[in-house]
Amino acid sequence: MSSKLPKAVEQLIESFERLPGIGPRSAQRLVFYLLHNPEEKLKEFADRLVALKKETVLCSQCHQISESDPCQICSDQTRDKTKLCVVEEPLDVIALESSGTYDGLYHVLHGVIAPLNNIGPQQLFLHDLVKRLNGVEELIIATNPTMEGEATALYIKEYLKQSTEVDTTKLKITRIGHGLPIGADLEYADSVTLKRALEGRREI
Amino acid sequence: MSSKLPKAVEQLIESFERLPGIGPRSAQRLVFYLLHNPEEKLKEFADRLVALKKETVLCSQCHQISESDPCQICSDQTRDKTKLCVVEEPLDVIALESSGTYDGLYHVLHGVIAPLNNIGPQQLFLHDLVKRLNGVEELIIATNPTMEGEATALYIKEYLKQSTEVDTTKLKITRIGHGLPIGADLEYADSVTLKRALEGRREI
Repeated sequence: MSSKLPKAVEQLIESFERLPGIGPRSAQRLVFYLLHNPEEKLKEFADRLVALKKETVLCSQCHQISESDPCQICSDQTRDKTKLCVVEEPLDVIALESSGTYDGLYHVLHGVIAPLNNIGPQQLFLHDLVKRLNGVEELIIATNPTMEGEATALYIKEYLKQSTEVDTTKLKITRIGHGLPIGADLEYADSVTLKRALEGRREI
Repeated sequence: MSSKLPKAVEQLIESFERLPGIGPRSAQRLVFYLLHNPEEKLKEFADRLVALKKETVLCSQCHQISESDPCQICSDQTRDKTKLCVVEEPLDVIALESSGTYDGLYHVLHGVIAPLNNIGPQQLFLHDLVKRLNGVEELIIATNPTMEGEATALYIKEYLKQSTEVDTTKLKITRIGHGLPIGADLEYADSVTLKRALEGRREI
């Protein structure tokens, strides 16, 4: 179909096609949209792509994407160092921060255990979690309520129990609350969510 | 929500958000996907963005996006110069070429007349169409069968009729055939398509 497109156009289409959720047709549309942009805008886009990796690092403590190492949160002395929250992805930290209710530290796994995708505990930032538990009183496991997220939460719990480096009798391991999201309609909630919502009921 | 994301990440998200069909969430997902890419891949993507405009030109005759001016098709001496096909977008040329049945020349309008979007005949490559009709025996108007495409087709016909530069008695103006697409089901076709299909019936 693209026998007569200029090479520059075809190559950029190919680059867009590699992105998740962008098929050949969307990639074509994006490139033809960009053709109508001024050259400076394309240059700016290109510079930002190059800057992405150059100007960011992974925090060596929590593995969050950051401009500095340690990151803003890890180096913030006012944060509660007795709480550690384990999340799957960097964006989860941003989401939890925006809730404004958590003042502890984070630990970003950069994924979940997913045997079907060949992702085991070794592919995640799990090995150094144990070393961070010194002084921590509560470990909140906030992986997503998906099959993989639940399996990862269970794995972390069992792993810490068996670890000789951690005194699990003193460490409280909690799972983030599941139930009806605010604004939802009970009538349309799925049965698993309702089951969890009932299990997680609290006195008012 | 993104109060703590590094600036490089936020800026790239913003660049992706400007693209059509990509919302804030997709932009975030794309950028976090790119963070897992090696730096060379990002550099390659960036280089291709810059090359897009630098290594392509609009053909001064047919206005197709091309590596050279005139483009491959316009400079091909074997093509039938008595036929000229008017299309909306560069990709339409690629699509028609892939059909392998047309050997004439093209004229890319780069849009359609759409008063609601403030696009009139002046915003399109319509003004120089008249000059290209010298020696042309058939003008095939292949704008899309949408409201704007139909209006543009009608406009071109009336414009050429009123033009003193063109002898419309010698020029055959045709519209690309409309009807049921191959593989379609008559039962599910909409009424306008069926009307056009009946109007466009041919002896077999």
